[in-house]
Amino acid sequence: MSSAAQVLERCDALAAISEETGRLVRRFATPALREAVDTVGGWVRDAGLAVREDGVGNLIGRRGEGPALVLGSHLDTVIDAGRYDGPLGVLGAIAVAERLGERELPFALEVVAFADEEGVRYSTAFLGSSAMAGSFDTTQLGSTDAQGIAMAEAIRAYGGDPDAIVSAARAPGDLLAYCELHIEQGPVLERAGVPVGIVTTITGQNQVDLVFRGEAGHAGTMPMQRRHDALAAAAEWIVGAEALARGREDLVATVGRIRVEPGARNVIPGSAALSLDLRHTDDATRRAAVDDLRSQAERIAAARDIALEWTLVGETEALPLDPDLAGRLEEAVRATGTPVARLASGAGHDGVAMSALAPVAMLFVRCEGGISHNPAEAVAEADVAVALDVLERFVVSLA
Amino acid sequence: MSSAAQVLERCDALAAISEETGRLVRRFATPALREAVDTVGGWVRDAGLAVREDGVGNLIGRRGEGPALVLGSHLDTVIDAGRYDGPLGVLGAIAVAERLGERELPFALEVVAFADEEGVRYSTAFLGSSAMAGSFDTTQLGSTDAQGIAMAEAIRAYGGDPDAIVSAARAPGDLLAYCELHIEQGPVLERAGVPVGIVTTITGQNQVDLVFRGEAGHAGTMPMQRRHDALAAAAEWIVGAEALARGREDLVATVGRIRVEPGARNVIPGSAALSLDLRHTDDATRRAAVDDLRSQAERIAAARDIALEWTLVGETEALPLDPDLAGRLEEAVRATGTPVARLASGAGHDGVAMSALAPVAMLFVRCEGGISHNPAEAVAEADVAVALDVLERFVVSLA
Repeated sequence: MSSAAQVLERCDALAAISEETGRLVRRFATPALREAVDTVGGWVRDAGLAVREDGVGNLIGRRGEGPALVLGSHLDTVIDAGRYDGPLGVLGAIAVAERLGERELPFALEVVAFADEEGVRYSTAFLGSSAMAGSFDTTQLGSTDAQGIAMAEAIRAYGGDPDAIVSAARAPGDLLAYCELHIEQGPVLERAGVPVGIVTTITGQNQVDLVFRGEAGHAGTMPMQRRHDALAAAAEWIVGAEALARGREDLVATVGRIRVEPGARNVIPGSAALSLDLRHTDDATRRAAVDDLRSQAERIAAARDIALEWTLVGETEALPLDPDLAGRLEEAVRATGTPVARLASGAGHDGVAMSALAPVAMLFVRCEGGISHNPAEAVAEADVAVALDVLERFVVSLA
Repeated sequence: MSSAAQVLERCDALAAISEETGRLVRRFATPALREAVDTVGGWVRDAGLAVREDGVGNLIGRRGEGPALVLGSHLDTVIDAGRYDGPLGVLGAIAVAERLGERELPFALEVVAFADEEGVRYSTAFLGSSAMAGSFDTTQLGSTDAQGIAMAEAIRAYGGDPDAIVSAARAPGDLLAYCELHIEQGPVLERAGVPVGIVTTITGQNQVDLVFRGEAGHAGTMPMQRRHDALAAAAEWIVGAEALARGREDLVATVGRIRVEPGARNVIPGSAALSLDLRHTDDATRRAAVDDLRSQAERIAAARDIALEWTLVGETEALPLDPDLAGRLEEAVRATGTPVARLASGAGHDGVAMSALAPVAMLFVRCEGGISHNPAEAVAEADVAVALDVLERFVVSLA
């Protein structure tokens, strides 16, 4: 079996390890993640690497001495996930380690499977890579999941050690570089007709919570002209936000949540709470768009005599990936005879946390229809074969 | 104490009889409604009427012989209700019966307190008046509330008799007329500066459920131009629906509910389900507006390559109230020296069901700020005094 075929077969095997029957859900520190990590740990061992886990539950396979070149990704998933977001990078790293065999390298080679990237269980992303990078916020250990289970308790039940998370952070000199293989999760490579792409930048993001507070009223007796309809205000703003994002190149703005109160068929909404997720690879462009959207919301609220609450709940600056590593990936792509494509990542990745420790590179694999976070996620075996070739050449180029 | 002051004092007393502490909730066939009906039954007896309850739990007080002039309203409430919507009409009817004393009338006088008008518990309005009018749908008896309690069981626990509901319906010849006193629940009388108004029509209504079905996607990786965002489509339609209703006189259109799936901050909404409540006193105007809003939704969905589901879940034609009875109310208003105001009711009322049995009249009392279905509901004692004068004169005019 080719190593690409084996990677896909292992992705299939992992997809069957879920918290639920019928759909793939594998959140941080759950028995399903335990089973997946144990399974992957066996494969890492089979590839000739020594295996350990750190305090937060990251799986680390290693061979060789000195600063480490780390290849990896994550094994946790979103709810009703696809089978490649995360596992492809972990299993691809194992495949590359296998292909390198006992070849002597002037650095250590590590394969890492992060325990949490999606952040579904505790509503906070990158628990795994932030622990490794030394940016883990220990105040999170007291936070609880939907069942009321504190994170520290969950980590202990999983077999980790919350008290060892901080001390287990890697020192910057420990790592030579971090390189992650991942599905694109977007349509760019498919439209360009190329199997893999070199990531130039991980996008910057803003997360905002908005609440329009108007006045509830009777749907039958309150004339249109006397209303302060919070949902109508929100709708006007959503339409404007979409138009603004469409008008600025590469900007994406998403309202993924909306909740109205009281939420009855015959009552004018008194309040509408919604979320904004806004991303761009240029921080100045992103900040200007956030400012403009806030001004639009304020204008709409004022014109309707409605109150507006605007809360910035998260902001991440864009992360330009390492140009030298990207150049090496490009040479490796050329060497396989594949056209070179560079693209930005609109999704966040563990590289954001890992960039505090070491230079970071990412290689994207074309995915069908740009679909991700969805059971329909699909990649072609031929594309995975190219990606493994590129990664192997990349490692050799560093040797 | 004036009879208006007593009516308000009794409204205060009933407001304390609730399923919950801290807010007024009195749904159909609950212990709270039982207590309220028992209290009101005592007042009806004190006014010299014989009291009984029918199978569904309507309280009926009666004196005299022959076809009945029925005065009344309902005692159930919405969640977090005001104290006048319903009780004002019941207590006003008792006050009029008291004022008439033993005065001989050539018809029976009845005071009715309907057991369910709001329909909160079983999501279906007019259980009380439809039982009296013979239009009660017995298939509803098997439906369950949020706690899984079947309606028939709830009625038995309340002290009613589900098997007697159909046979207890009144015969059309039994009733001379139905007249209901109610708070306006809107701002028309307040703006006109008049204490009471004669209702000309109870508005016609459509209830529609819409679902826009687009395509969920990653908020960071899916370019704006490739999205099929169900919430953006819904927002565009909501903005258009508001503009359409604003542009047509007396039309009201309300989107009171919206739910998006999957409803995550970083996921483009794949579906958006929303409700439309649309009302007008002219049926042709209402139907044309519904057709236009459906066309708008279809155009928006088509332009975005999104599927649309449009489900008509309810339709009630406008009910013109009886012109002869309205004329008698108008004379009575004039006789009190109050300016005459006529207005339509944007809310549904028990008169809709009762119109199958007898001619119907309604008198509205001005309410503060047009606010209803809200603990801030308020009426002025002087306005209630005018209303009681008008109602008493109205009864006498029929004698």
